[in-house]
Amino acid sequence: MTPMRELLEPDSIAVVGASASPGKPGYILLKNLLDHGFPGRLYPVHPSAHAILGLPAYPSVLELPEPPDLAFIAVPRETVLNVVRQCEARKVRALVIVSAGFAEVGGDGAMLEAELRRILVRSGIRAIGPNTVGLVNAGRKFVASFVPFPRWNDGPIALAAQSGIFVGALADELMAREVQSPGIRLAVGFGNKIDLDEADFLDYASRDPKIRVIALHLESLKRPREFFEIARRVSRDVPVIVLKTGRTAAGARAAASHTGALAIEDRILDGAFRQANIVRASSAQEFLVLMRSFAWAPVPNGSRVGVLTFSGASGVMASDEIEEAGLSIAAPGRSTIDRIAALLPEWQSVGNPADVWLALAAGARRALEAPLAALLDDPGVDVVLGVLLALPNTDFAEVREVFAEARWVYPRKPIFLVLMGGGVKARWLQELEGLDIPIESDTGLSVRAIRALVDYGMRRQRYSGECAAGPR
Amino acid sequence: MTPMRELLEPDSIAVVGASASPGKPGYILLKNLLDHGFPGRLYPVHPSAHAILGLPAYPSVLELPEPPDLAFIAVPRETVLNVVRQCEARKVRALVIVSAGFAEVGGDGAMLEAELRRILVRSGIRAIGPNTVGLVNAGRKFVASFVPFPRWNDGPIALAAQSGIFVGALADELMAREVQSPGIRLAVGFGNKIDLDEADFLDYASRDPKIRVIALHLESLKRPREFFEIARRVSRDVPVIVLKTGRTAAGARAAASHTGALAIEDRILDGAFRQANIVRASSAQEFLVLMRSFAWAPVPNGSRVGVLTFSGASGVMASDEIEEAGLSIAAPGRSTIDRIAALLPEWQSVGNPADVWLALAAGARRALEAPLAALLDDPGVDVVLGVLLALPNTDFAEVREVFAEARWVYPRKPIFLVLMGGGVKARWLQELEGLDIPIESDTGLSVRAIRALVDYGMRRQRYSGECAAGPR
Repeated sequence: MTPMRELLEPDSIAVVGASASPGKPGYILLKNLLDHGFPGRLYPVHPSAHAILGLPAYPSVLELPEPPDLAFIAVPRETVLNVVRQCEARKVRALVIVSAGFAEVGGDGAMLEAELRRILVRSGIRAIGPNTVGLVNAGRKFVASFVPFPRWNDGPIALAAQSGIFVGALADELMAREVQSPGIRLAVGFGNKIDLDEADFLDYASRDPKIRVIALHLESLKRPREFFEIARRVSRDVPVIVLKTGRTAAGARAAASHTGALAIEDRILDGAFRQANIVRASSAQEFLVLMRSFAWAPVPNGSRVGVLTFSGASGVMASDEIEEAGLSIAAPGRSTIDRIAALLPEWQSVGNPADVWLALAAGARRALEAPLAALLDDPGVDVVLGVLLALPNTDFAEVREVFAEARWVYPRKPIFLVLMGGGVKARWLQELEGLDIPIESDTGLSVRAIRALVDYGMRRQRYSGECAAGPR
Repeated sequence: MTPMRELLEPDSIAVVGASASPGKPGYILLKNLLDHGFPGRLYPVHPSAHAILGLPAYPSVLELPEPPDLAFIAVPRETVLNVVRQCEARKVRALVIVSAGFAEVGGDGAMLEAELRRILVRSGIRAIGPNTVGLVNAGRKFVASFVPFPRWNDGPIALAAQSGIFVGALADELMAREVQSPGIRLAVGFGNKIDLDEADFLDYASRDPKIRVIALHLESLKRPREFFEIARRVSRDVPVIVLKTGRTAAGARAAASHTGALAIEDRILDGAFRQANIVRASSAQEFLVLMRSFAWAPVPNGSRVGVLTFSGASGVMASDEIEEAGLSIAAPGRSTIDRIAALLPEWQSVGNPADVWLALAAGARRALEAPLAALLDDPGVDVVLGVLLALPNTDFAEVREVFAEARWVYPRKPIFLVLMGGGVKARWLQELEGLDIPIESDTGLSVRAIRALVDYGMRRQRYSGECAAGPR
């Protein structure tokens, strides 16, 4: 059994530091659990309250009617040790230590954390934190976060971050969008990683067949050897995306005071990520783009990109981005060119990028359907990138149908879209939702995602097989 | 008088190829002109219609009651030459040639364009196009675009692009957003640049005191020497941002078939841009970010960035981005640190980035106001970057006031914001609109904009003065 199960699959939960005041973390946590329909038993712990949010409250862990599977500890740091000792006495099996002020502040905080660790080791209690914000297992209706989430969408992503509040913001950003919003099945904030860490999460997440991508925000690696060993295995089936911050000297200094992370030379880490076929994101924006892209797009067989545009300028931009990313502009076959040229005035030369602007007078179905099919049929094209201008005069009704059909007829060739424009773009984004087509506002973002998918696929192929020698 | 005036300040306009069918370009153009209240005289030209959109129509340019200042030509390319000859006969002073199929397709298209050019030269008619989509001078209620714009916002930006439809998409994207939407005062699509080009536009735009930034999308430079001469002069007062595409071999090939652009080695161009203190954008996304940033933020005096965050993770990320961009993490003075530390628990160490999360329990005003003022007061801080998590539990009422006051009290120090989150972020973006604070969703984007502002300011200082020697 993987140790993360103790944290992510509880049947009974105590919330030490529960509160009846809306806005207080100990209120939000209980509210989240109730609102999302947690089916297990909930025990608020509060020194004096008799009931919180309609649930009977208990003055301490010692008085609970049963030892809970999991206890949340959200009390001032001075009383954390005492609560943990009570949990030890009641044989609680797992803890989420929310309180801050431990190793990340050094000095007496570090001493407190060392004492905490001693108790965990001698008792066998598993824990995450301190300095975390909670965790979510949407498949079990377990939304235990100190950030309020009015709505949590289950989906193909497993997301863990060093900083709880940051993972909260990422999740909020991903799920508050009505469009381009894959759901999140698992979310964990590790904080100081006193016990469980990213390696445990990776292992646990990889066992859930509904998870299609695992995304980790890291400031440090607690057990690099174990982490990379697990990552190498996991990434054969499930892409692992890492946003590792603290890359620079300034970043590493900031990380040390944030979660007490020790710096590792970034160049060395970068090589190790590649060897484990981990996809690395360079910014929060790219992290989100890669999550969507890996959750939705199939892995391409090669790096030859066919580009469909509504404007010559878009084609030029896409060509630059593709070449600069080390991908190649596909050379479409004669029949592909002929199928596209048939829609255009005789004098327009057709190539790749293919500009179908002049075919649009006859509507989107006519302008897009045949060129899209031609590129998807072409064995010399591995990925199709559509760069469409969603302008008032391209406000077609058939956009969803055309792409839904293409996605359905060609499930194994990735289609990426870039949409530029205003109101029409907003409508198209709504219409195209649910087709598992990653859509960005900037060609560069889509091209970087394609490059990441291509790299992932090539490494996976190269590293596959038990007898594979070392990479490179 | 600058030649662009003939195109951008007409009192009378003929639309050759006007149409009564909604959706047709010749209809949209007239509708745009009427809807935006063009105060001059409009003459639809149509072979048979008596009236279009309530305006009397004329069968040809020869029959117009007066020679118009400007004629739009949106007819099949075969008849363009004939219309231009009629315009020559009627002494029309300027043309916008919308039709495509000229130099960009080579062969007979190039021959047609050469013939067009001969007529322009002998007659002295000024022109933009062929292969363009129109132009806008919002200050004169002159919105002459073949892309329908239900609403055009005047503002501090002058925007020109090689591709008309692309400039349409950029403008639509900029103006359809309710937030972070500076208006656009001038917009021009040059197309094949048979006559007027980016140098003319730069010269013209620089004379309008309401324009705070000039943004150019270029695939080629028609007259590099003149362009850089004008740019060097203009950029002393008004920042010039260029998105030059066709950087790579693949991009240059695509550009040749798009607007007949000739390739220039990108490395050489890049040096010339720097020498003229032109700010270069690397993608459409960055182009938009830089337009907003230069339109709104004052130019900083140096590169030392003070960072205010709601999360340690955000601080680490910002530190990485700042160091990687070649900026520096400011070292705030003792009194700055003290003013921030006063709000936080004693055990939290305060530095830069300053994480004010734990002060938020007392509300946004308390958590942000003093730290923001402290950083803005600090002579060792040139720019303030706030990385805020807009989460349901940080849903404060006072965000607008705090930033409005800071912007007002410290008008000469730039404030940049990064907002992450869902619904609350959307609300904050609305509230913060109109404060001239550039807000992005990704720290990397804001940091690149800060770097561009710092570079621009340093070069402007270095290149200023008549007696300045060559740069470097």
